[in-house]
Amino acid sequence: MNNNDVLIAKNALLDFCRDVFIKLNLSSGDAEMAAKVLVEADVRGIASHGVGRLKRYVNGLQTGQMLPDVQSRIIMESDSSIVVDAAGGMGAPVSIRTMRHVIEKADKNGAAFGCVCNSNHFGIAGYYAMLALERDMLGIAMTNTAALGVPTFGRQVMFGTNPLAFCAPANQEKAFVLDMSTTVVSRGKIEVCERDKKALPLNWAVDKTGRSAADAGAVLNDMFHRYGGGILPLGGEGEQYGGYKGYGLAVMVDILCAVLCGAPFGMAIHDTETSSARVSHFFGALKIDRFRKTEVFRDDMDKMLRQLRETPVAEGSERVWFAGEKEFEFKERAEKNGVPVSIPTWKNLKLIAEEFGLSLHERK
Amino acid sequence: MNNNDVLIAKNALLDFCRDVFIKLNLSSGDAEMAAKVLVEADVRGIASHGVGRLKRYVNGLQTGQMLPDVQSRIIMESDSSIVVDAAGGMGAPVSIRTMRHVIEKADKNGAAFGCVCNSNHFGIAGYYAMLALERDMLGIAMTNTAALGVPTFGRQVMFGTNPLAFCAPANQEKAFVLDMSTTVVSRGKIEVCERDKKALPLNWAVDKTGRSAADAGAVLNDMFHRYGGGILPLGGEGEQYGGYKGYGLAVMVDILCAVLCGAPFGMAIHDTETSSARVSHFFGALKIDRFRKTEVFRDDMDKMLRQLRETPVAEGSERVWFAGEKEFEFKERAEKNGVPVSIPTWKNLKLIAEEFGLSLHERK
Repeated sequence: MNNNDVLIAKNALLDFCRDVFIKLNLSSGDAEMAAKVLVEADVRGIASHGVGRLKRYVNGLQTGQMLPDVQSRIIMESDSSIVVDAAGGMGAPVSIRTMRHVIEKADKNGAAFGCVCNSNHFGIAGYYAMLALERDMLGIAMTNTAALGVPTFGRQVMFGTNPLAFCAPANQEKAFVLDMSTTVVSRGKIEVCERDKKALPLNWAVDKTGRSAADAGAVLNDMFHRYGGGILPLGGEGEQYGGYKGYGLAVMVDILCAVLCGAPFGMAIHDTETSSARVSHFFGALKIDRFRKTEVFRDDMDKMLRQLRETPVAEGSERVWFAGEKEFEFKERAEKNGVPVSIPTWKNLKLIAEEFGLSLHERK
Repeated sequence: MNNNDVLIAKNALLDFCRDVFIKLNLSSGDAEMAAKVLVEADVRGIASHGVGRLKRYVNGLQTGQMLPDVQSRIIMESDSSIVVDAAGGMGAPVSIRTMRHVIEKADKNGAAFGCVCNSNHFGIAGYYAMLALERDMLGIAMTNTAALGVPTFGRQVMFGTNPLAFCAPANQEKAFVLDMSTTVVSRGKIEVCERDKKALPLNWAVDKTGRSAADAGAVLNDMFHRYGGGILPLGGEGEQYGGYKGYGLAVMVDILCAVLCGAPFGMAIHDTETSSARVSHFFGALKIDRFRKTEVFRDDMDKMLRQLRETPVAEGSERVWFAGEKEFEFKERAEKNGVPVSIPTWKNLKLIAEEFGLSLHERK
């Protein structure tokens, strides 16, 4: 967080977001789920996916890109699988419901997976994966996104930032929660460079010729209009640092989210001036006790996570974290002191409050 | 391949490796499986995992690190899962058998997973994942390895190069086959730099202080003796290029292979002067028709893979590949013209042939 951030009580922020969604004709259940996922991002310190996006969701619901009053529909189902058509509704509620189905199936079946097509932005992938933790399961969640990523040796966007989340429960320790985009960076970090008028680091993005780009504004514009160029896969440009690995992971996510259930994939997914892309998601759960007693698994996870936290630190660095640890620490502070929100986001939230006749206050 | 490479007929190489393993007291079935996995690596152009390793396998079997005449044992099993104790035998045969079990289970159950503990080097992960392809399934395979990777901001090896493979079948096109280590590079590439007396590229490895290393020999020595330093995770040093993502993926692989079945993990796995580490593996299969008709899935995979291959190429580059495509092309050439083997490997094979009274000839 930044020292200028405004602190808001978590419950106040949750109620506010829920009430905004209700004003936009979501059922109270769906509104609550959408609010929970959004606020949890800020609570975990992932502001890029938090209430700073509320305005975009409001726009989406007002312009009809996201439909508030649709019923998602199960289009295929078995003991180990489910495919859900979100019918253009918001991403979060249908994703929570689908992950719950997946968990129930995995509880009986040992492992289960689900796809959601025809959906919208679902927030942080980790939220859904983590629903498996308290049920003694490994959790998996992925989504494709509008195409922003350029394949190794390419110069045109062919896949999204396609995040994947994987989590495993521990006992005394918090859980292991990996939640990562498969590109080097997300679009948000390119936008920050543009705003701050900084050159892009090498190996983040390529321009329309396919060579490493420094001009953030040009990359964003050319990528948006599909003139060429885009964000590099995890591992960067070419093959020297394993860029083909990030490229492969991004396509794997697209296969699981989209090809597996017949949804649009790759460059067919794109945002326009007036609307966001319809995306699809993938969820999974594996029951630990099909492999080993859950208690001993959790104890070994404690041991592993402690070893990682306590490993010797590189000179000049402060600390080693395991995946998810930073976010758990952020959450503890946010739940105690209030959820930090940047000044621009705060101003935005106040405008939304005004528009809908709602109120939102800083934490006293 | 290199112009100096020796070409050997695939079947001659297979028979030779099988006969060597039989001389070392493997059953003919196990010997054949071990030979197949080893030779398939060379056939696919992944020489680092091919017959260049035969000498190490011979040593392992002769010193007792790999046990030739053990029975692997199922220690836990359900409709969707299997855990196998390899009893210190070779990695390939037990891995093929376990993946076959997983596939049979997935055929009935929709999805299934397996762990193998107490095993040895299993060669290319992609081999096992690809067994799922002809059964209309998505295939998954992973293994942990001796600890060689340093966590973000750390300076001590805490996980292996931990490869993961994922594959999906297509129709007219070859399959999508991702097979990647989760570190920037494998130890093999560091060894090549040492041999050629080249400085390591930045972002490949750190020295014992945890800072970026240039001296390949020092990295290999310090890493081997656990003095500190090691290979960086995919994404490189620090957080700027997403190194924590590769770090997280490596730990995910370790959780699935080892923690899930109670095997040693992380820094507990290490090679010594006289023996290689006992490692563990993870396998999975998902039946496509639980989500969608397999034929339309395969057709959409064709579409996706073609789009990736035909995407505009970066200036100065030749071509864009999808994951596995290079290897399929290499395989076509190797099966037609012979399997290329480097001069040092060829000399090694001839010595092994002599030791066991076997013969091996270049392709006429």
